[in-house]
Amino acid sequence: MSKHLTKRTDDYSKWYNELVVRADLAENSAVRGCMVIKPYGFAIWEKMQAELDRMFKETGHQNAYFPLFVPKSLFEAEEKNAEGFAKECAVVTHYRLQNDPDNEGKLRVDPEAKLEEELVVRPTSEAIIWNTYKGWIQSYRDLPLLINQWANVVRWEMRTRLFLRTAEFLWQEGHTAHSTKAEAVIEAKQMQDVYAEFAENFMAMPVVKGVKSDSERFAGAEDTYTIEALMQDGKALQAGTSHFLGQNFAEAFDVKFTSKEGKQEYVWATSWGVSTRLIGGLIMTHSDDNGLVLPPKLAPIQVVIVPIYKGEEQLEAISKKVNEIVKELRKKGISVKFDNRDTFRPGAKFAEYELKGVPVRIAIGNRDLENGTLEIARRDTFEKQTINQAGVSDVVEKLLDEIQENLFQKAINFRSENTTVVNDFKEFKKAIKKGGFVSAHWDGTEETEDRIKEYTKATIRCIPNEAKEESGACVLTGKPSVKRVLFAKAY
Amino acid sequence: MSKHLTKRTDDYSKWYNELVVRADLAENSAVRGCMVIKPYGFAIWEKMQAELDRMFKETGHQNAYFPLFVPKSLFEAEEKNAEGFAKECAVVTHYRLQNDPDNEGKLRVDPEAKLEEELVVRPTSEAIIWNTYKGWIQSYRDLPLLINQWANVVRWEMRTRLFLRTAEFLWQEGHTAHSTKAEAVIEAKQMQDVYAEFAENFMAMPVVKGVKSDSERFAGAEDTYTIEALMQDGKALQAGTSHFLGQNFAEAFDVKFTSKEGKQEYVWATSWGVSTRLIGGLIMTHSDDNGLVLPPKLAPIQVVIVPIYKGEEQLEAISKKVNEIVKELRKKGISVKFDNRDTFRPGAKFAEYELKGVPVRIAIGNRDLENGTLEIARRDTFEKQTINQAGVSDVVEKLLDEIQENLFQKAINFRSENTTVVNDFKEFKKAIKKGGFVSAHWDGTEETEDRIKEYTKATIRCIPNEAKEESGACVLTGKPSVKRVLFAKAY
Repeated sequence: MSKHLTKRTDDYSKWYNELVVRADLAENSAVRGCMVIKPYGFAIWEKMQAELDRMFKETGHQNAYFPLFVPKSLFEAEEKNAEGFAKECAVVTHYRLQNDPDNEGKLRVDPEAKLEEELVVRPTSEAIIWNTYKGWIQSYRDLPLLINQWANVVRWEMRTRLFLRTAEFLWQEGHTAHSTKAEAVIEAKQMQDVYAEFAENFMAMPVVKGVKSDSERFAGAEDTYTIEALMQDGKALQAGTSHFLGQNFAEAFDVKFTSKEGKQEYVWATSWGVSTRLIGGLIMTHSDDNGLVLPPKLAPIQVVIVPIYKGEEQLEAISKKVNEIVKELRKKGISVKFDNRDTFRPGAKFAEYELKGVPVRIAIGNRDLENGTLEIARRDTFEKQTINQAGVSDVVEKLLDEIQENLFQKAINFRSENTTVVNDFKEFKKAIKKGGFVSAHWDGTEETEDRIKEYTKATIRCIPNEAKEESGACVLTGKPSVKRVLFAKAY
Repeated sequence: MSKHLTKRTDDYSKWYNELVVRADLAENSAVRGCMVIKPYGFAIWEKMQAELDRMFKETGHQNAYFPLFVPKSLFEAEEKNAEGFAKECAVVTHYRLQNDPDNEGKLRVDPEAKLEEELVVRPTSEAIIWNTYKGWIQSYRDLPLLINQWANVVRWEMRTRLFLRTAEFLWQEGHTAHSTKAEAVIEAKQMQDVYAEFAENFMAMPVVKGVKSDSERFAGAEDTYTIEALMQDGKALQAGTSHFLGQNFAEAFDVKFTSKEGKQEYVWATSWGVSTRLIGGLIMTHSDDNGLVLPPKLAPIQVVIVPIYKGEEQLEAISKKVNEIVKELRKKGISVKFDNRDTFRPGAKFAEYELKGVPVRIAIGNRDLENGTLEIARRDTFEKQTINQAGVSDVVEKLLDEIQENLFQKAINFRSENTTVVNDFKEFKKAIKKGGFVSAHWDGTEETEDRIKEYTKATIRCIPNEAKEESGACVLTGKPSVKRVLFAKAY
């Protein structure tokens, strides 16, 4: 464990992979592209889930569960959606294994057990859910239908990265049904706001809210609202999307309702999701060359206490005091771990919790016991101070808030410093090469978007909600434009 | 909604299916054998999950997540386990769909995208997890490893029933690793105790703790500890199992550790699980011909308040009072719904909440407002009383405890009345025909077990932990036996 991580400036991608594995967050599995989420990584996901789930319920949504499998005939019903996902589908074709007659002790697929219709492992659940909604929606009284699902999905990606892009990932997917277009659009935008609030207030990760260009839109959507974050290496991360689906799925699955006026109308839809990819975003927003840095609101362990002692007797005396402090901290809802293992020295423990991003570390030794003091260190700035034991829980509570706020401010500053406003293509290329968000005028055509991508690998991350109307000229073609859009290379 | 449910005495199975659908718990999906868990049913599962997860964490377990897919070569490594599940495996053979050249707008499996090695959709995760543990365990210091996973699993069952037996179901699976046999056995028994405590204290469902006979044991286990419950129709339900796996998986995946003495030894294992099947057990323990009956500790809505009014003005006056009551109840952590919909009459609302098993119903009308009273009705006994509004939250709190306790006592009494002790095969057959648990001596052989099953369809549910040593004669063969075991027909 003493080996240092690769430095971010040396190889950001290598640093990331090392960090994920060494901080015990996740690892690659025996299944191509699928990860194992280790207990410490999963504890972060549980914290994220708890907050998001609370926010979804506060905005009127209920959880439900729909099948893992989508029969091929349902999968292909909404053509654009099917086309978008067909190339990366895991397909179940058989339902039984049998002993391999040519290979004792081995199994083979039983050729007799072929499914009449293949089953797609859900890459997303619009198809199976809208096929179900058909039975649930008859009248305007059944609307809105506001449902969320926590689930695993599979997309057979060719190039995978732990958390950021894996063949199987965990996510939530909201699927709502509405009687009017206006209501559905409001819902889709509301969930974009919920995601942005979660990203900024809990992950301390600033995001730009915006709408996707046509070519970056979700397959089957009319509009995709996104939140885009900027990572430390200057690449953008799409952190969550919320789709206004129009009546596409209602038409594909023939889901109509009787309006108040007695007319039969197609239902309006939204869907929205965030995934374990957020953990990748969390890592690449805050962490440093020493390891993970976690915002206190999502840290599984907010405070670790390490005793500095020689011999059983000292440990006992220190433990007595520590147990009081632990109790006091827990009373305030602060999660705290007392690491009294005698198989590791304090220095090794310090390094371990630094690597794992525990926001606050308290060390307490024999001298402290005599003086009524303890040493408190913060992970984000490495600042240490010696304070009185009395009132420590108030100090810690305040410190956790400060760390949360500091991380957000640092990330905001980083983003400001790495957002470049450009007005011609030379500047554009230079800015993209340097990395970060690039705010530029664009003529609104897919052709220009494609050419820019070809020249620079940059894509339009979004047309920001806050982009102001101004007349300008497209950086590539010089054609007129009324708004700046945000470009970046992206994960 | 006015149509009555089928009566339990007329057709228990039909009653069950109708109840599950009409109480909005679940429904069949477009995928053979897979169910959709509707929001109300899922809310019960969330309550179960929250309590179980708390209990798992209190006993030192952490959550993690392992891949959905198991490569065939790993799946077949532990032979007994593989043999036990091979016949019901969904198998992924391809990773891409393509446009069907013969069928415009349709997709087909891309024959070029055949996987080199087939992937089994996990029916249980021992194989993938023990293959992972190999990398996590080197020394006795890495043990015990105490991990749980909440996940979906797939077993291609031919005859399915909502919640009780579905091709895909949700469950938790604990997988632990230990340095000694004794510690692993203690762990497996501890989790049996946790399950029993959950079943009895939260589900109000009494269970018999015992061990499975050889033929009913989990594929790959040395011992399977089970909790067995008795349903209203006299059939038993295996509600949760905890397996002592010996060193079988450690040997299959070569997972060794260096002991304190410096020796290389195979690791000892347990696994344990409960699933959405518990919801089926909950239904068949308490519900009646009017619908679902829920124990308060797992009821998504514990109290519903229905206003009895004529006109806006009365509703407004009643609502003002109800909002106070709602506040008071919520302060005590009681979940309450105020159903002020004006599209349904009180009678229809009463029927709906009866069907949905809401434990306590409060009705409040204009007269009550004048008198400072309200009507309170309990779902389990249909008893109603008029009480003062003042102090209603204390009354409700006490009532919820009483209902919880009453449901458990009723179920205990039912089980006592339906447990028959028999001493010869004539009595045995009669008792099995009548239904319920049958306590009988058995000679301990699989042959006898098989013959009894053939004659009566009854299986050994378990050898109860509390079975006392006594000398007896096997009901079928007359051979000597030292303990009574529990027989029943089972789900």
